[in-house]
Amino acid sequence: MPRRRREGPDTPEAGHGRGRRVTIAHIAAAAGVSPSTVSKVLNGNSDVSAATRQRVQSLLAEHSYERRSSAQAEPPLLIDLVFQELESPWAMEIIKGAVQAAGEAGLNVALTSLSEHDTTRPWLDHICARGTQGVILLLANLDRRQRAELRSRGLPFAVVDPRGEPDPSITTVGATNWSGGFNATRHLIELGHERIGMISGPLDLLCSRARMDGYRSAMESAGLSIDPDLMAWGDFHVDGGFKAAMTMLSLPKRPTALFAGSDLQALGVLEAARLQHVRVPADLSLVGFDDLPLSTWTSPPLTTVRQPLADMAATAVRLVLAHGDGARAQSIELATSLVVRETSAPPG
Amino acid sequence: MPRRRREGPDTPEAGHGRGRRVTIAHIAAAAGVSPSTVSKVLNGNSDVSAATRQRVQSLLAEHSYERRSSAQAEPPLLIDLVFQELESPWAMEIIKGAVQAAGEAGLNVALTSLSEHDTTRPWLDHICARGTQGVILLLANLDRRQRAELRSRGLPFAVVDPRGEPDPSITTVGATNWSGGFNATRHLIELGHERIGMISGPLDLLCSRARMDGYRSAMESAGLSIDPDLMAWGDFHVDGGFKAAMTMLSLPKRPTALFAGSDLQALGVLEAARLQHVRVPADLSLVGFDDLPLSTWTSPPLTTVRQPLADMAATAVRLVLAHGDGARAQSIELATSLVVRETSAPPG
Repeated sequence: MPRRRREGPDTPEAGHGRGRRVTIAHIAAAAGVSPSTVSKVLNGNSDVSAATRQRVQSLLAEHSYERRSSAQAEPPLLIDLVFQELESPWAMEIIKGAVQAAGEAGLNVALTSLSEHDTTRPWLDHICARGTQGVILLLANLDRRQRAELRSRGLPFAVVDPRGEPDPSITTVGATNWSGGFNATRHLIELGHERIGMISGPLDLLCSRARMDGYRSAMESAGLSIDPDLMAWGDFHVDGGFKAAMTMLSLPKRPTALFAGSDLQALGVLEAARLQHVRVPADLSLVGFDDLPLSTWTSPPLTTVRQPLADMAATAVRLVLAHGDGARAQSIELATSLVVRETSAPPG
Repeated sequence: MPRRRREGPDTPEAGHGRGRRVTIAHIAAAAGVSPSTVSKVLNGNSDVSAATRQRVQSLLAEHSYERRSSAQAEPPLLIDLVFQELESPWAMEIIKGAVQAAGEAGLNVALTSLSEHDTTRPWLDHICARGTQGVILLLANLDRRQRAELRSRGLPFAVVDPRGEPDPSITTVGATNWSGGFNATRHLIELGHERIGMISGPLDLLCSRARMDGYRSAMESAGLSIDPDLMAWGDFHVDGGFKAAMTMLSLPKRPTALFAGSDLQALGVLEAARLQHVRVPADLSLVGFDDLPLSTWTSPPLTTVRQPLADMAATAVRLVLAHGDGARAQSIELATSLVVRETSAPPG
């Protein structure tokens, strides 16, 4: 388990003689390198070969090396937020939530975007070199090596995961995607729709599958059959919604309602409807997913499923900061909820 | 002038005897406090009274005290971005640009939102306590006291200022608002519109005035008169655009084109047009300002004036990092440019 850093000198001698505690000297001996090389790996210096770095990091992880910080008189006043990229508008919601929870703890949020990061130095080395109280990750994939590295540095971390990938060994905060899909579809059914289509996100993301399954279950519960032509996998972006809607709205028997799987895909559906002279909601009801700020600004304002992105990030920050010795990994899903605005109405 | 921090011991004795350099001891003597109190002020400790803090800071500024840092072996791997609040979608563009330019320099961006900040400790104390290479500010107002504090800490700083407030003594990066307003209006005139309305931002922001003046000049250059009913001041948000457009589109002789002053206000115009059964662009042409990502997602996609927000933030980061001793404050305006999409067309 990742552990909180403690104050104290970080020298080979420091923990010596305490018996229980693994020191830099132990790791150095086991790796066949000098203690200063181990320190360099811990501090993220770049002048250690990849092979040596890897060997040392494996040993640090294997022996649950517990780092002690000497550089700062007080713990670093930062918590880190690491994105794969800063493109999606939901990144802003995540940032807001993290900044709020960090602010309550008297910390600032430091941002890394891996797509922008200086590639000459691994991002984790960089973060460790200046110190942090923990890391919140928003990554497409957190691979085994990255996980081992975070643990070997003794850094608490959590994954905010709108994609919903389960991993019982790490702390994740997600949302109830299946329920969201179920409730969105049930809302359309209750309005009287029967020919309801679903455009979900990418097939390989579990959250897309969960939303699609929620749609299917709601349809089945109501005794409605699903036309395979009215099920599509998109990309969670505007274009994916646009393309799928252009196809579905061209069908001889078009849907009277669409659940768009994300707010951005719903924007694409609105544009496809405009081009095909389909009025929303008179001719087509539409439900998004996310409840980004922009969902109140569409024309008409978008009925959607609220995914509490800011709360998810704030929860992750609080979990990381509360992360004491021996705390167990937790997997939390915050509730989604339907927000009815003006794109859903009884069929015309 | 703010100066770059240098390495070296930070004790009263350090600069003593060098003659030219003001030391903590000098400041302490002048303020009638102990040297440790001066150190506390420099380090942002909270156990100094407000009055003492202010007196010491004034003296530090007056004597151009040059701080030397002893805490870090290498300069802090951070640059700071300070927002009044993280609400507007242009905050995301600013963040992206800052993260990119910081990444190129091997730095991460630390975020402060003053509306979320723990109020028990001033934000600048907080930033100074952990160290930074400089501060980029996005504040409604940077007052005299804040400016003096930044200078007394020896921190380079710059203001990214979409509002365009001029201050020759500080480094600012803005955009050419007047030209943007002129070009947006000329585009509508060239399409054949004559009855053109303008909804600008708040009257008290210089950028709003500059955009409105650009509109007026373009109208005058073309020999077109301006109906005072077609000039409004909004709030730069969706609601401001909505309200002004609801009024203008209800006029007995409504405009055939609107320049909305911001993309968010343009979203409000689109909704007002929908409610009044006015088709865009068939019955009403519309031009926004900013070119936020969402301007490509509206229905139809929005013609707008591109304000290079990410470039503005990146430029500010580079200016702060390049800020050597004696560098002059610079005021830079990056060019705006018209992006023609589908909301503008010849009058129907």
